[in-house]
Amino acid sequence: MNYPNGIKKQNNSNHNESYNSKLSHKNRGMTLENDINLSNEYYCEIDKAYIYKKPTPIKIVNVDYPSRDKAVIKEAYFTIPSTTDYNGIYKGKYIDFEAKETKSKTSFSLSNIHSHQIKHLKNIYKHNGIAFLIVRFTTLDETFLLEAEKLSNYIEDSSKKSISIEFFRKNAYILKNGYTPRIDYLTVVDKLIGGKEYGKKGN
Amino acid sequence: MNYPNGIKKQNNSNHNESYNSKLSHKNRGMTLENDINLSNEYYCEIDKAYIYKKPTPIKIVNVDYPSRDKAVIKEAYFTIPSTTDYNGIYKGKYIDFEAKETKSKTSFSLSNIHSHQIKHLKNIYKHNGIAFLIVRFTTLDETFLLEAEKLSNYIEDSSKKSISIEFFRKNAYILKNGYTPRIDYLTVVDKLIGGKEYGKKGN
Repeated sequence: MNYPNGIKKQNNSNHNESYNSKLSHKNRGMTLENDINLSNEYYCEIDKAYIYKKPTPIKIVNVDYPSRDKAVIKEAYFTIPSTTDYNGIYKGKYIDFEAKETKSKTSFSLSNIHSHQIKHLKNIYKHNGIAFLIVRFTTLDETFLLEAEKLSNYIEDSSKKSISIEFFRKNAYILKNGYTPRIDYLTVVDKLIGGKEYGKKGN
Repeated sequence: MNYPNGIKKQNNSNHNESYNSKLSHKNRGMTLENDINLSNEYYCEIDKAYIYKKPTPIKIVNVDYPSRDKAVIKEAYFTIPSTTDYNGIYKGKYIDFEAKETKSKTSFSLSNIHSHQIKHLKNIYKHNGIAFLIVRFTTLDETFLLEAEKLSNYIEDSSKKSISIEFFRKNAYILKNGYTPRIDYLTVVDKLIGGKEYGKKGN
């Protein structure tokens, strides 16, 4: 699953969909991304963790300067991110994760993650960071946190191009929806940190 | 000058300058940003640290879809970054910093850093991350690493709007130019980590 230059076609332009969800989620009901962003804002407000979404990477080709202090980007392209969407600090630990939604009721397609993002997550946990993947099955309204090590092992051990929901139910942590924060994923991160500190790997 | 993707406009606004330096540093001699990026690539290659520059934050207003798999951003604006430019992991520690150049021979103007970036750096060191500012005085070819705590204290104690080069010479670490890596700033980070671990703050 190499995507040298651009995500492969997924029906009516995946880029379009992710672009819209980024720009107009407030008008479209709550996306996973929005839930995570609001949770991160809450964590910042209560001085618990500082975790941010990285800006969307783009390649800028043409910029216009209608006045001295106003630059307008007139031509740019989405590029493949070198890393994951979210990173930051919690309890002095480096936190790094990717978050994805799927409409499927049965499995999460690995084409949703770039191979170098998986490699990145692997580098992070090998260097004692806390690395994971959050996946929401939107149709079922089930959200999971899967440790990067388990994700990486799955990919190395299996020739499958997707991860079944059963795998998530057995091997990942369930993330429940709440109000503030909307997804309290740091309670799961506490377990991951505890597991690492006591030399255990969670369940 | 050959730009990889044909930049069309260039006149003399500030934005233009920083934009050009981002896109065409390879043709313009080594900038601090380029030195840091190359050093970070080297650290990744030797599996020493995973530190990346965040994408330039922009607000996308209009996207065109000339064909199914090709999105072209037709209107977007540069926005103020919420955090710093660089972050990542080294020895299991969360690393976070901002890097700036100045042509001045005498001082670094604090107008080069947004107040919320300073607040962000403060949040990071309070949460036991390694946070700092790298400043290069390009005319003098002197590069410094200043711990975020010292930067923050300076700003709180002083009403000045700039930091003199003498302050850097007394309170910051000198970063020498090398070949690989071009700026071996992790040797200084080792001192910062050592100072924290032994309850000392280094000097």
